[in-house]
Amino acid sequence: MSEHRISASGSAEELLKKVRVVLVNTTHPGNIGGAARAMKNMGLSSLYLVAPKEYPADRAVWRAAGAVDVLDSAIVVDTLEEAIGDCGLVVGTSARGRRIPWPLFTPREFGEKAIHEAKTHDVAVVFGREDRGLTNDELHKCHYHVHIPSNPDYSALNLATAVQVLCYEVRMAMLTLAEGKEPHFDDWDVPPARHKDVEMYFEHLEETMTDLGFFTPENPRQTMTRMRRLYSRIRLDQMELNIMRGMLTAIQNFVYHTNKKLEKQQKEP
Amino acid sequence: MSEHRISASGSAEELLKKVRVVLVNTTHPGNIGGAARAMKNMGLSSLYLVAPKEYPADRAVWRAAGAVDVLDSAIVVDTLEEAIGDCGLVVGTSARGRRIPWPLFTPREFGEKAIHEAKTHDVAVVFGREDRGLTNDELHKCHYHVHIPSNPDYSALNLATAVQVLCYEVRMAMLTLAEGKEPHFDDWDVPPARHKDVEMYFEHLEETMTDLGFFTPENPRQTMTRMRRLYSRIRLDQMELNIMRGMLTAIQNFVYHTNKKLEKQQKEP
Repeated sequence: MSEHRISASGSAEELLKKVRVVLVNTTHPGNIGGAARAMKNMGLSSLYLVAPKEYPADRAVWRAAGAVDVLDSAIVVDTLEEAIGDCGLVVGTSARGRRIPWPLFTPREFGEKAIHEAKTHDVAVVFGREDRGLTNDELHKCHYHVHIPSNPDYSALNLATAVQVLCYEVRMAMLTLAEGKEPHFDDWDVPPARHKDVEMYFEHLEETMTDLGFFTPENPRQTMTRMRRLYSRIRLDQMELNIMRGMLTAIQNFVYHTNKKLEKQQKEP
Repeated sequence: MSEHRISASGSAEELLKKVRVVLVNTTHPGNIGGAARAMKNMGLSSLYLVAPKEYPADRAVWRAAGAVDVLDSAIVVDTLEEAIGDCGLVVGTSARGRRIPWPLFTPREFGEKAIHEAKTHDVAVVFGREDRGLTNDELHKCHYHVHIPSNPDYSALNLATAVQVLCYEVRMAMLTLAEGKEPHFDDWDVPPARHKDVEMYFEHLEETMTDLGFFTPENPRQTMTRMRRLYSRIRLDQMELNIMRGMLTAIQNFVYHTNKKLEKQQKEP
């Protein structure tokens, strides 16, 4: 049927390979298999499993049906960091409102963003545990959140069907791109900072602010969470990150050298 | 949370009840349960089962999870005719091209059409058997067909996930109708910083960085331009701006007090 024979160019199809699905602490191996099947149905193939409770497992293979190849090439890691470290865009699935709201995509916006960014770097979409999703710490490692606008009276989607909906939107965006209907986005002059480099910036920032005595002892976490949200929203590029880290180093050098000078003067009365 | 509380008007929500899901000759009762769950997640409730192979069944109840009410109110009939007889629009799911092409919707078009027509009459979306879908006779009883544009190399979606994708598009169309636009989620907890306050931040930043000797003398403007672009892109909120200015003040206080201390020590040899 002509309407289905959308001539996705090779390169558009290739973009799907750069969008990885990350499942965190999955309890039921059947859901891993179901997710693999949903991915392959939509043309995605890169699956990361962060500390799955029970894996490998026959039940995963059974539910994967014809998508066993996706399971076979799945990468099992111990921490979320290992799964997303080299990604330029990380989006976390969030079932409910959080105390500090994060920039939030609809599934459609997510699909468009993922395909657009997959042209230049790897993209991760992160799914949490069946019973309680992602922790706040995990969600704060993500640039954006995505929420499937479900029935407020019964909002908990099965993990594999949630994977299905988001992969479906990624595929729809890819097909739109392949047809040349993509809305125009602004290009940028510098590549995005990698996730792990931004994490190092957060460490550096916390350290520097502690050196300066900036944190109010009663609530350091809240401040760091707000800073994390701020810089996640902004999507730092590599040069910006270099400038920001240079500033922190300048502050630390100043603190270090003036302390040295003070010590020296105290020794020479 | 406000960003999730999409105020679908009562009447828009009501439209979802007029879109029924019809499953024909389902083999695995687990899929019936999974379909019920997917429907309820998206706010649909009307389920028709045409000659299911095994039903009622514990496995259906188990997979339905919190959507047992949808199962309990499901109507079991012997023929497709009985399931769709009173509907004004009948759409059949089709996995592959047919010998005689039929008017075909994408899932998105289907969602929009279903919600539009549900204002005046009942709408049915019909799903076939797990292994071979709907027969040609059954498809020819439908006004339109709908195809989920899946990976040509692996196109067979699990029945419950296919129900999920189509019900998701129905819900998205309902939300669009309810809001008169695409669902828009990005509410925020703090008002945006005012322009002039952000300008003061830039002044403060430049001053502080100069105090620290951070700027490379040959190119201070380029660095400030990059910082300006960065913070303009981010759209700082008021609390974030306060934190950022607090940090700058902490740096300046440190610089000031250590310089004072140094002066004092130099005066008291």
